Amino acid sequence: MRAVVYKGPHQVQVENVPDAKLEHPTDVVVRITSTNICGSDLHMYQGRTDFEEGRIIGHENLGEVVEVGKGVHKVHKGDRVCLPFNIGCGFCKNCEAGKTAFCLEANPGFAGAAYGYAKMGPYSGGQAEYLRVPYADFNCLVLPEDAAEKENDYVMLTDIFPTGWHATELAGMRDGDSVLVWGDGPVGIMAAYSAVLRDARQVMIVGHHADRLKLAEDFGAITINESDVDPQEAIAEHTQGEGADRACECVGYQAHNQDGEEQPNLVMNNLVKAVRPTGAIGVVGLFVPEDPGAASEMNQRGQIAFDMGLFFEKGQRMATGQADVKAYNRQLADLVFHDKAQPSFLLSHELTLDEAPDAYENFDKRAEGWTKVVLKPGKNGG
Amino acid sequence: MRAVVYKGPHQVQVENVPDAKLEHPTDVVVRITSTNICGSDLHMYQGRTDFEEGRIIGHENLGEVVEVGKGVHKVHKGDRVCLPFNIGCGFCKNCEAGKTAFCLEANPGFAGAAYGYAKMGPYSGGQAEYLRVPYADFNCLVLPEDAAEKENDYVMLTDIFPTGWHATELAGMRDGDSVLVWGDGPVGIMAAYSAVLRDARQVMIVGHHADRLKLAEDFGAITINESDVDPQEAIAEHTQGEGADRACECVGYQAHNQDGEEQPNLVMNNLVKAVRPTGAIGVVGLFVPEDPGAASEMNQRGQIAFDMGLFFEKGQRMATGQADVKAYNRQLADLVFHDKAQPSFLLSHELTLDEAPDAYENFDKRAEGWTKVVLKPGKNGG
Amino acid sequence: MRAVVYKGPHQVQVENVPDAKLEHPTDVVVRITSTNICGSDLHMYQGRTDFEEGRIIGHENLGEVVEVGKGVHKVHKGDRVCLPFNIGCGFCKNCEAGKTAFCLEANPGFAGAAYGYAKMGPYSGGQAEYLRVPYADFNCLVLPEDAAEKENDYVMLTDIFPTGWHATELAGMRDGDSVLVWGDGPVGIMAAYSAVLRDARQVMIVGHHADRLKLAEDFGAITINESDVDPQEAIAEHTQGEGADRACECVGYQAHNQDGEEQPNLVMNNLVKAVRPTGAIGVVGLFVPEDPGAASEMNQRGQIAFDMGLFFEKGQRMATGQADVKAYNRQLADLVFHDKAQPSFLLSHELTLDEAPDAYENFDKRAEGWTKVVLKPGKNGG
Amino acid sequence: MRAVVYKGPHQVQVENVPDAKLEHPTDVVVRITSTNICGSDLHMYQGRTDFEEGRIIGHENLGEVVEVGKGVHKVHKGDRVCLPFNIGCGFCKNCEAGKTAFCLEANPGFAGAAYGYAKMGPYSGGQAEYLRVPYADFNCLVLPEDAAEKENDYVMLTDIFPTGWHATELAGMRDGDSVLVWGDGPVGIMAAYSAVLRDARQVMIVGHHADRLKLAEDFGAITINESDVDPQEAIAEHTQGEGADRACECVGYQAHNQDGEEQPNLVMNNLVKAVRPTGAIGVVGLFVPEDPGAASEMNQRGQIAFDMGLFFEKGQRMATGQADVKAYNRQLADLVFHDKAQPSFLLSHELTLDEAPDAYENFDKRAEGWTKVVLKPGKNGG
Repeated sequence: MRAVVYKGPHQVQVENVPDAKLEHPTDVVVRITSTNICGSDLHMYQGRTDFEEGRIIGHENLGEVVEVGKGVHKVHKGDRVCLPFNIGCGFCKNCEAGKTAFCLEANPGFAGAAYGYAKMGPYSGGQAEYLRVPYADFNCLVLPEDAAEKENDYVMLTDIFPTGWHATELAGMRDGDSVLVWGDGPVGIMAAYSAVLRDARQVMIVGHHADRLKLAEDFGAITINESDVDPQEAIAEHTQGEGADRACECVGYQAHNQDGEEQPNLVMNNLVKAVRPTGAIGVVGLFVPEDPGAASEMNQRGQIAFDMGLFFEKGQRMATGQADVKAYNRQLADLVFHDKAQPSFLLSHELTLDEAPDAYENFDKRAEGWTKVVLKPGKNGG
Repeated sequence: MRAVVYKGPHQVQVENVPDAKLEHPTDVVVRITSTNICGSDLHMYQGRTDFEEGRIIGHENLGEVVEVGKGVHKVHKGDRVCLPFNIGCGFCKNCEAGKTAFCLEANPGFAGAAYGYAKMGPYSGGQAEYLRVPYADFNCLVLPEDAAEKENDYVMLTDIFPTGWHATELAGMRDGDSVLVWGDGPVGIMAAYSAVLRDARQVMIVGHHADRLKLAEDFGAITINESDVDPQEAIAEHTQGEGADRACECVGYQAHNQDGEEQPNLVMNNLVKAVRPTGAIGVVGLFVPEDPGAASEMNQRGQIAFDMGLFFEKGQRMATGQADVKAYNRQLADLVFHDKAQPSFLLSHELTLDEAPDAYENFDKRAEGWTKVVLKPGKNGG
Repeated sequence: MRAVVYKGPHQVQVENVPDAKLEHPTDVVVRITSTNICGSDLHMYQGRTDFEEGRIIGHENLGEVVEVGKGVHKVHKGDRVCLPFNIGCGFCKNCEAGKTAFCLEANPGFAGAAYGYAKMGPYSGGQAEYLRVPYADFNCLVLPEDAAEKENDYVMLTDIFPTGWHATELAGMRDGDSVLVWGDGPVGIMAAYSAVLRDARQVMIVGHHADRLKLAEDFGAITINESDVDPQEAIAEHTQGEGADRACECVGYQAHNQDGEEQPNLVMNNLVKAVRPTGAIGVVGLFVPEDPGAASEMNQRGQIAFDMGLFFEKGQRMATGQADVKAYNRQLADLVFHDKAQPSFLLSHELTLDEAPDAYENFDKRAEGWTKVVLKPGKNGG
Repeated sequence: MRAVVYKGPHQVQVENVPDAKLEHPTDVVVRITSTNICGSDLHMYQGRTDFEEGRIIGHENLGEVVEVGKGVHKVHKGDRVCLPFNIGCGFCKNCEAGKTAFCLEANPGFAGAAYGYAKMGPYSGGQAEYLRVPYADFNCLVLPEDAAEKENDYVMLTDIFPTGWHATELAGMRDGDSVLVWGDGPVGIMAAYSAVLRDARQVMIVGHHADRLKLAEDFGAITINESDVDPQEAIAEHTQGEGADRACECVGYQAHNQDGEEQPNLVMNNLVKAVRPTGAIGVVGLFVPEDPGAASEMNQRGQIAFDMGLFFEKGQRMATGQADVKAYNRQLADLVFHDKAQPSFLLSHELTLDEAPDAYENFDKRAEGWTKVVLKPGKNGG
């Protein structure tokens, strides 16, 4: 089969590789019809992880079941299924608690597994014609009859939409809250979109990409372009000096200051300042325990200079971590089915598998208009 | 009346001062019969705050109502009342949400008020014969008929017991959890005591004071003396390598490393390491936004070098802040009334008001056996 | 002053009565500018309660503060304030727990107090020129600068909008749920409106008033007119045979079957049937402990023949009771302020105080188009 | 193999039947070493259900894994496993939500499956030498190294202890609450035991079996023998007239009044009366949708004359249903492992399989001292 293979820093290539196949009675094999490129794919693409050369990339996958193991109960050949990027077993302590992003079984020795992802186990990615899905009954969300028609909406449930939603959940968001999202990448936009859907009284999003902020403005968010205004002042004004109730960190350790230097604590400390006493911060932007390429020794150790004193004085909270996609994908699929959510608006490019290398290059340099890419492996022989 | 007055770094004095009196129709005046010295009094005693010389200290107060304002509904002359250290108005946004430690009305311009406390408003402390209590209906917990008999238990509800309980609550503790408490000061001991009462499957407490750890051992906690063993190893062993479900930070920015130097991030990073993926940390140890006396510039700004990368990878949470005493004092008083909790075991010294200066000196140097002091203003003319 | 006075079954009259005045230092007096007639006023109007003749009616009140007691802190002369229909003290066990509908202080011997309401204490109603408001700091929601402009929205926060919202909360509603509302009176419509705002995937409302159902259809609810279709069949179809996740009982004991007879268990048992296993029911429709006028002895005792067996087998839940308005009015006011909610669409009639008797008559017979009435005491000398 | 087989009303017999065997790759076969008789087995024993003659009974099962299907991941031959009485698939909507008592897959057409249980699917019971366990990874709780030593504690986690705990959970119990348990059968005693462990300030248990109440008294509950005192008066006295915060219904539809007649609404209405406004009731006592043998037509339809009026006026809540055992069994096993819970105190009789018929007879007539029976299939050839 054809697949997008990682070949080293800033290189991916579409190659012929052995077909995905059943490896355990509880597996299924899925013919991939849609697979997104994710911002976290870029960490691997850039060579900032220990992702092995030769591996297939891709963890935002949707497709049709073509082979079913003998131990599978619910999933049938021909089902169209949406696959959470995290692989859960369904029966470990964390999966049972709904914390499927921290499965203890699928990737022994580490809490969490995923398709085609550094550190997250031996599983191949889905930017390919076929994908092996382990623990299939638990990991396949079988889609309803509008699956084909709304495929570009449903594929957003594999990661990006639940991750944005998770940010609002980690922030403890409740109806009527004032929600601040920092970061206008795909995750930030989905966090803001989630907060609007979830009945925030106001949603503010901070970023510096006019094209992306425009998307947020269109669904009702208040946009704050940090190239134009001082975000802290703007937030104070929008909240009558009170500060936001909730904030979503959607940038992570690769935050850049105005001089264009990486400053990993930049957004976190901005949020501590911008959130009101008793408020909370949900962190879905990536932070890593070791970052050999960082500028300072402290940052290399995965530490940041965090405003703990102010955070404590204000009695704030924060919660972090990758999204437990299964905790949200049923309800989000229900919203899509009933036409209450259309997250596909985020997609700027729909390409063939063969176009993946170009897509990576453009997405990596944040080329104007490249907000989010979906690959269609079956399309045009690609 | 006689009162303990702050006179400058490491000096308190018992002086004659003007009597406490009603200043608003919703006030009452209380004759103080028990008032504890708190670990946070020591921050002021040491001169590490901007607490003004001449002010009366003391925020853990209990006594008998002797005067009642005309706007007071529920509280009557002769009632024995237990007073939360934080002063809440009862009707601001935060008080209504149960966040009485962050009252927006009682101390305009700052979220939070308290008796005799730096930054927390103009209110006098209660290490005195009498105390003015504002918003009396909201702030007085009227005690039941065993108030006198169990006075040393009830006085613990003003701060120290609820603060320990709050640590377990901030950590998201649930029945059956494995709970780690770091710090064997009065707050740490009360956090461990709370976790035992709340049905933890195991409670571990880390410290280096043998006499204090003994108190925790007596109520069923597992004690880890860091002078004797490596705490991380001990925790791993007690949890079969899994890590604790929940942790309570009960030390704060004045944590000392083994060389006796202050290292503000010491306990926080230890907890990130010791808590399992998906676990949570409750922080009640004090951190301050500015600490001019700190060793490094970063610490002076109130920042710590925090292991954000590991914290994120493990999907952990933390919640912080002073205890909202009113959120707990009814239920804790019920537990005392029904003989399910006896927090007075923590008291090592019961002294007169006149003995306060000696008590401060001994408590400040953590003299052996000085775990917790209660002053009895009415006693022996003192 | 002029006021709407209850004169006996089916009689109210606008009379001159003594002016409302301060009776306690924590009171304020409010000049009423908007006051709604509520469905529960009709219970008193019909003479089915022990509401005393001569009392002033009206518990959905909004106006301007004209006199302020000496014990009041936050509320000032000239403030425009929205008054929850339930009167809470702010410091009893239930108020502190946010259960202000069950205040233990304001109406000794009964849990709950309200303005001009049978059984709910001695407080006068607000269908009058002036109203005395006790525990004013706690009971007055001071409105922002758009108070006058959006007065008809804000007056809905006194009871009807929070009561509808409360129904969804009692039903344990979460984002993405399928919500069923039974009853198309003002409360049912507000429950459906709340569920739509709160991001239900579908909201179904059952009733038989075409004009009222039209209002619900306009904001996106699925309407089920029981005059035309079998509601159980319609619900099954809309939920693919699964049943609703959540249901709101918005009818109460005066439910009528198709023969026009009162059948108090009608809606409750319909909901048990229509809700899926593990689902929940929020009950805000009124049930009373004694109903001397009921048809059967069982109903006279306040009992209903409830499908407990099916309810248990399905593992359902229910929660009941009057709305704790203060638990919701801040956030709902925020939604109004930020133009996220406009509950005034429910108002069909805006009348003077003098028109109250006519309004009661029409509202009581559910005259077509009489959905909800607001009285404007200051208008045209009325 | 030998097994306890239902032969018709009041008849069970130990017979030779075909061995349990693997039927699906995700099954395991367990050699049963402990299996309890449950109060709900008596409903089948009495012939009040449609349980088919010839079926093997028994749903409280523990044993050693002897055969493992090829699709099983975690469970290994030789593991000692504790089996929740409800069978869940682990991947349906309800299982994923933690509502494993209402699994939608294991028993198509009905929400919920169990071993050897009327209406709950085709699964054989475990009062036998061997048992087939479906969806084994999800349903087997693999026990730690003290499994053999504490087998009589761990077997209580199959149903009775989690069911008692569930009652407190359904009642919304929190630390410090006053908890009322009605019913002194095994479930009631476990509910009271759970409430004590969970830090209630007081636990009251109502019943009329002196021997059973003695067990509850021994672990610290307040016992109320309704043969001696008026329960409502006793509860009022113990709660200073306030009423209980929480109540657990542990009797069900077969409640008997003082004349010895079945009165299905007896306990429910008593609880509505005894619980304070805003309180809640957890119902684990069985109610059934149809009861052809009931005295009144209303009761035959599964309805009870419920005090809805008082329930609503007090703003109470209730939650019902069989226990989702998997929601509790990990944490309860942890408590047993760490010696914080010893539920085996409830066992009055430890018998061989051959003694089952006698045991049923005695347990059914509630013979003095027959509180709870565990059968040991491997023992003495029985």
